[in-house]
Amino acid sequence: MIPDEQLNLALGEWTSCLSQEHVISAEGLLDRYARSSSASSRRPAAVLKPARTDEVAAIVKIARRHRIPLYPISTGLNWGYGDACAVFPGQVIVDLGRMNRILSIDRELGYAVIEPGVTQAQLAGALAQESVPFWMDCTGASPHSSLIGNILERGFGHTPYGNRLLTISGLEVVLGTGDIVHTGFGHFAEAKPTYVFPYGVGPYIDGLFTQSNFGIVTRAGLWLLPKPEAFRPFLCFFAEDEDFLRCVEPLRELRMQRVLQSVAHVANDLRAISGERSFPRDLVPAGARLPEGVRLGLRRVYGVGAWTLTGALYGPAAQVRLQERLLRRAVSASRARVVVLSERKLGLLERFAPAIERSRLLRRLSPKIRAARSLAGLLSGRPTSAFLRGSYWRRREGIPSDLSDASDPAADGCGILWLTAVLPFRASDVRGMSVALEEVFARYGFDCLATLSMISERALVAIVTIAFDPSEPSEAERAKECYRAGLQRALELGYPPYRVGIDGMDLLGPAEEDAFWNATEALKRALDPDGIIAPGRYQPGVFRGER
Amino acid sequence: MIPDEQLNLALGEWTSCLSQEHVISAEGLLDRYARSSSASSRRPAAVLKPARTDEVAAIVKIARRHRIPLYPISTGLNWGYGDACAVFPGQVIVDLGRMNRILSIDRELGYAVIEPGVTQAQLAGALAQESVPFWMDCTGASPHSSLIGNILERGFGHTPYGNRLLTISGLEVVLGTGDIVHTGFGHFAEAKPTYVFPYGVGPYIDGLFTQSNFGIVTRAGLWLLPKPEAFRPFLCFFAEDEDFLRCVEPLRELRMQRVLQSVAHVANDLRAISGERSFPRDLVPAGARLPEGVRLGLRRVYGVGAWTLTGALYGPAAQVRLQERLLRRAVSASRARVVVLSERKLGLLERFAPAIERSRLLRRLSPKIRAARSLAGLLSGRPTSAFLRGSYWRRREGIPSDLSDASDPAADGCGILWLTAVLPFRASDVRGMSVALEEVFARYGFDCLATLSMISERALVAIVTIAFDPSEPSEAERAKECYRAGLQRALELGYPPYRVGIDGMDLLGPAEEDAFWNATEALKRALDPDGIIAPGRYQPGVFRGER
Repeated sequence: MIPDEQLNLALGEWTSCLSQEHVISAEGLLDRYARSSSASSRRPAAVLKPARTDEVAAIVKIARRHRIPLYPISTGLNWGYGDACAVFPGQVIVDLGRMNRILSIDRELGYAVIEPGVTQAQLAGALAQESVPFWMDCTGASPHSSLIGNILERGFGHTPYGNRLLTISGLEVVLGTGDIVHTGFGHFAEAKPTYVFPYGVGPYIDGLFTQSNFGIVTRAGLWLLPKPEAFRPFLCFFAEDEDFLRCVEPLRELRMQRVLQSVAHVANDLRAISGERSFPRDLVPAGARLPEGVRLGLRRVYGVGAWTLTGALYGPAAQVRLQERLLRRAVSASRARVVVLSERKLGLLERFAPAIERSRLLRRLSPKIRAARSLAGLLSGRPTSAFLRGSYWRRREGIPSDLSDASDPAADGCGILWLTAVLPFRASDVRGMSVALEEVFARYGFDCLATLSMISERALVAIVTIAFDPSEPSEAERAKECYRAGLQRALELGYPPYRVGIDGMDLLGPAEEDAFWNATEALKRALDPDGIIAPGRYQPGVFRGER
Repeated sequence: MIPDEQLNLALGEWTSCLSQEHVISAEGLLDRYARSSSASSRRPAAVLKPARTDEVAAIVKIARRHRIPLYPISTGLNWGYGDACAVFPGQVIVDLGRMNRILSIDRELGYAVIEPGVTQAQLAGALAQESVPFWMDCTGASPHSSLIGNILERGFGHTPYGNRLLTISGLEVVLGTGDIVHTGFGHFAEAKPTYVFPYGVGPYIDGLFTQSNFGIVTRAGLWLLPKPEAFRPFLCFFAEDEDFLRCVEPLRELRMQRVLQSVAHVANDLRAISGERSFPRDLVPAGARLPEGVRLGLRRVYGVGAWTLTGALYGPAAQVRLQERLLRRAVSASRARVVVLSERKLGLLERFAPAIERSRLLRRLSPKIRAARSLAGLLSGRPTSAFLRGSYWRRREGIPSDLSDASDPAADGCGILWLTAVLPFRASDVRGMSVALEEVFARYGFDCLATLSMISERALVAIVTIAFDPSEPSEAERAKECYRAGLQRALELGYPPYRVGIDGMDLLGPAEEDAFWNATEALKRALDPDGIIAPGRYQPGVFRGER
């Protein structure tokens, strides 16, 4: 912990730089930042809310002088990975939420220049309001979550621009020295291609600022998806595990041939069901996971199979029609039921959905309609809170009937940890990983709510939700143990995580010396000599002494 | 220069590590390394030829102990950018040509793991011999040039995998400390997705080793292009500048909508003509550039217009047919003549080309046939020397009649400098840049042989060849001045270079302090504390004292 005297000196300097109202140190006001949907919370020492890059630079210089660690957050909605919490308690949060300007939108080349506080809903709104002929790529996270925050974690969306790391260009970064760096061509005065060509000339350093603690990104160019002539969301329902596994290679082939151009997504039965309802406590003995029979029953009730593939086709109308045929052919090896939302169906949906959702008679149809609309929105750049429903799986009170874009699973008392792994795009790897994780989850008494995302032509990202009830301390403890055991099992099998939360940072380190982590430690010292920014974040060396 | 005594001590240690035959210091044997097709040569102090990564690490440690700068090359065929020459004379070349193993080829996920000495021809040969259902992306450089060498310079090819930086995964790098780092997931024991998911977990550092001097890359995974069901190369001939300019935006739209998925390429008249013949000295006063009248005459003789677009469509047959229609529609705004090499035409070409090339009667057809075959080869992963013909533009003896894959423009006495720039994908930028460069080139008396490559949906890379006769010292001097003036003019206009040669490194630096270059200097010190590897390479700080 930082000694009070040292902190107070720094707080004084920060206050003269930001004004009183943007320096928060009163206990009560820190609660929102200490709260976490993951099993662990960390109480910060204070919170700073800069509005401009020069303020961020000044904050960092003050912190450096007083040797006080800072922890930048964008909007702090990193649910299931630590929310707004630092890796260690007692650090000073730099909340970038006030830096929420959309600095420009280029309607011709299709990009926006944004600050870290810009949210999904905000950018989507601006594009719609100004009739920009581009969509944004969005994730299933909160509409109020930060775009830059997610991209710096290498989060991904679902459109052809889903591998979001490949869609940013021209970063502005405040280093641990307080220096402000413009990457790519941004440091050449008047360079015209800064936001359309990320690499610049000389070393390409943008990757350094993702999943790291090397700097505070205060600005980025973000590419927008050209609005396609045609857009067709699709769903494929695979009845049994084997039906899906039989289609993994044909789907990879579609991705390889660029017929399927987007980051399509497969969810297992429980992940799909968790979008409809929460864990049926009444049908299950206390402390147990979902029995197989109940699971199969719920599949029937909600009309889902073992796996559901969702995605969309984007492009010229004739090309999309053709791609639909090729997709149907690829999954025909299994008995998958395929639903494609044609332009006509999408039109009907938009037109009649509100009436159906209000109608008593058609009430049974309502969840399907709502789900279809949310999916079509998500895949066309309209963020929605619908995909947060899964976070409420183990919540005692179930999914709130008034779930809205403003809902906050952390505030609602949800417990979630996201266990991730990267797999080669092969059926054998999907099978191996599934079996291993089911075994681990069964041992700890948790249900496996799994998705696989086709991040590229060659790799799948698996994300498994560990949903738990944080009001039961023993369950929260078991959830954390399940997370660690699952991550370690996946590593043993050769499937490292795509991303970790604050409780997984120490698991990234090796048992012995690792030249990669030694190199990243050296890079950290180069850009942040006093280790001011987010110590421990993707920095396993910090934990080495502890293990 | 390194004092002899110091060098001799190091040479002794290198010899005991590599054996006598792989340590070259005899004057005569250094000639090939000192030779350069660009206006400047640099004589190295010695050449080391390691065969394994541990030998590279040992070499670096010895160099560090004796404070002797090393300069790694892969195959040393970086024509027009400095060939095998270091940025400064008197350094010790590390020639990685003996590290030429294809370590594995994955036929299912489509990648090869290769060493830096692996050449384009070598990998293409291995894929063909083993009937691997994947193609490689190749460049118009020598078939004997290194794949890794080109990719680390962020060179690009012409297929959908043309932005080659996006197709590597899992690097092995020897740092300036002699440490061996495995990037991405490569440092996790037994990780399965090392070669299919480049980012790993934690900071993504691969970009650091491109256009830099931070380490010596000794291994990389390289993604291969799935062999498409259909493949159609195309050529569009634009009669006048305005015809092409009118199509820039429609072509961008095709790229944006992923109808045109590859890095298509536009060449101006002189670049196209330089593939057919060299500069017509007999028609032009000594020391002058090509007069407008002669230029127009040559256009007629060779049947080319002001600009020629080349590229190919790849994918399922029906999708490619559709894309052809959309391409024809996009360029129909101008009076472009479009030639598409359908599968039938390609078949005829392969079958009858040798006979036509031998026939006296059809001799006039022969160059067209040869060009079409070379283009189809280049676009389908078969490297060819045909695109080196332009390097011979100002050579007194013209293009050798026996030009082959083994030809070496540097040895043949060609002079070339490649001036590059990145532009937003907009007609106004193409126009602005063309006018400015024509003006600079006219001032120095050089012809503008230009290409524009659609590196992405939003950016174009311009490469302009400055061809000169190195046997005339004043012409070589003028060429260098033209290069520097062109680069500076482009920078002023906001079009920074995509890549520079050894004579352009000092131009990258700013007049004053630049936080970006300061940060890269800090990164350099972190990974190579004694500045052993390639000082000055994309490191403008080294020149700061000189300016």
